[in-house]
Amino acid sequence: MGGDYGLEVTIPATLECLENNLDLSVILVGDEVLIKHYLATVKNNCQQRVSIQHASQCVDMDESPSKALRNKKDSSMRVAINLLHEGKVDACISAGNTGALMATAKFVLKMIPGVDRPAIISTLPSTFGQTYVLDLGANVECTAEHLFQFAVMGAELVKAIENIKTPSVGLLNIGTEEVKGNEQVKAAAKLLENSSLNYIGFVEGDSLTAGHLKVDLIVTDGFVGNIALKSIEGTAKMIGVSLKAAFNKNIFTKLAGLIVLPVLQSFKNRIDPRRYNGASFLGLRGLVIKSHGGADVLAFKTAIQLAECEVKKNVLQNISKQIELSLAQRENA
Amino acid sequence: MGGDYGLEVTIPATLECLENNLDLSVILVGDEVLIKHYLATVKNNCQQRVSIQHASQCVDMDESPSKALRNKKDSSMRVAINLLHEGKVDACISAGNTGALMATAKFVLKMIPGVDRPAIISTLPSTFGQTYVLDLGANVECTAEHLFQFAVMGAELVKAIENIKTPSVGLLNIGTEEVKGNEQVKAAAKLLENSSLNYIGFVEGDSLTAGHLKVDLIVTDGFVGNIALKSIEGTAKMIGVSLKAAFNKNIFTKLAGLIVLPVLQSFKNRIDPRRYNGASFLGLRGLVIKSHGGADVLAFKTAIQLAECEVKKNVLQNISKQIELSLAQRENA
Repeated sequence: MGGDYGLEVTIPATLECLENNLDLSVILVGDEVLIKHYLATVKNNCQQRVSIQHASQCVDMDESPSKALRNKKDSSMRVAINLLHEGKVDACISAGNTGALMATAKFVLKMIPGVDRPAIISTLPSTFGQTYVLDLGANVECTAEHLFQFAVMGAELVKAIENIKTPSVGLLNIGTEEVKGNEQVKAAAKLLENSSLNYIGFVEGDSLTAGHLKVDLIVTDGFVGNIALKSIEGTAKMIGVSLKAAFNKNIFTKLAGLIVLPVLQSFKNRIDPRRYNGASFLGLRGLVIKSHGGADVLAFKTAIQLAECEVKKNVLQNISKQIELSLAQRENA
Repeated sequence: MGGDYGLEVTIPATLECLENNLDLSVILVGDEVLIKHYLATVKNNCQQRVSIQHASQCVDMDESPSKALRNKKDSSMRVAINLLHEGKVDACISAGNTGALMATAKFVLKMIPGVDRPAIISTLPSTFGQTYVLDLGANVECTAEHLFQFAVMGAELVKAIENIKTPSVGLLNIGTEEVKGNEQVKAAAKLLENSSLNYIGFVEGDSLTAGHLKVDLIVTDGFVGNIALKSIEGTAKMIGVSLKAAFNKNIFTKLAGLIVLPVLQSFKNRIDPRRYNGASFLGLRGLVIKSHGGADVLAFKTAIQLAECEVKKNVLQNISKQIELSLAQRENA
């Protein structure tokens, strides 16, 4: 039900994913009448792998997480997470209210033993391909220990999805020298140096998208991560607007724009945010994927495929195991 | 002497500024022999407004600020700031080591009464023109009071340089709702709401370059500000690389690139970082401008012109007055 477009996006995206993956089956959670009505208007061959779970409520996009948790016990979001908790599904995908989704998931699913806080991880396009970043906004204040746990969890996700044996991990800071940064970051660096992770040290803001060296995973707190993410999105948008304005200046520049349309399109595809849609909630006892609220069909498909991949690669089990190992390793040290 | 290119950039930029502004006179601080030698190779009509102050040392670009402060008492940076302290110049411009410049400036000049910490402010290109942002890295941890002082100082700078009577001030946060953010940001919001500033509330990372509404000044701590700034620089760089790659794909796309070169150039000019060069150190008893280390002649000229403007508009005196006023206002409240 969630996101800016609701069923118009979520259902077509789901059906396309079902067509592409014959092992996939989906439970659509939400208003049964609306969903049935929408499904009747689209034809496809996969409806036998789609079932519907009715939910009488919807969480609004701007509803406060605590209110949603208290008052919307039969929301599509809550019912979907309940299904995950009961083991009836392997992952839950939503394009709804991020704060409410996180609060509900945390409340229903609980944390993996050894993890103090859940974190939000996603990818950004970079000159090297892509970079994984966490936390993107679940935690406004983080201790060194939280940052360390984020690194362990994030590395497991990158390993699984990107097939990288020992992903490189960087800690986001305002300089690469040891003396730079706040106390949390300096202390987290010590924990990471003494871990079995492939920790490469401090990285600066430009490493998120265009660093001097490739880094697979960048760890930061949710305040900094969220602001960096939105700064990057804003910059891409501003540049897009400027580029468009330059080509729209007069009839000659417009004609020139038509000629280079395929080039501009290939450039746009490269950094298309829809190709990077889908943020994973890590640290919970269940796979929850958050799609961008403004996702279109292509973008929502990307989020579903991310969930499929995380299930197939046992990301959840691997994270639990790795957190346990890293705690044991520290006790033995 | 500073920056990646030293005299090759700083001297030509200085001479061009002298040609453009007949009221300007400059003291070049550094190695007298090198400067004289360089000046002899360039011809211009302004040499009577150029004098040289010898300094026997140079601060390296990667030298630690504390070491520079202790061991380089005759560095070009230190001597230039001494001249400012002694009232022999109205402003000091450097393309050198930022940390050392800040530490030296703070040590020699001292703070304006009522200001606890100096801050670094600069501009970013935005869809609306430009946005001023501070702190960009002087302070890794800030209290609400620090953020408030940054807002007062930054607003005075924007007033003076942009000729805006009541610049709009936003506080950088991970959401616009009152409940969002860390404790410092929430407390700073209260201080700003009760001030005479044109405070518009919380703004998110995308407002730095492409927000929904125009905001003249965005306030944040130096950790977040520095990472946001570098994220933005990195994104612009990554997009530039992707765009170039798209046009370099084959002979046809290369030809297409040639056709649209003027369009791409006008787009590039719009977001050219050289047009936004020059970060001001606020809160000190003297005007210090930091140029990007990688600045070319055009960029270094922008930094000099910024200093000229700040002197002409009495930014320093206005900041002192406004800080005094805002403290008095709070005592009366």
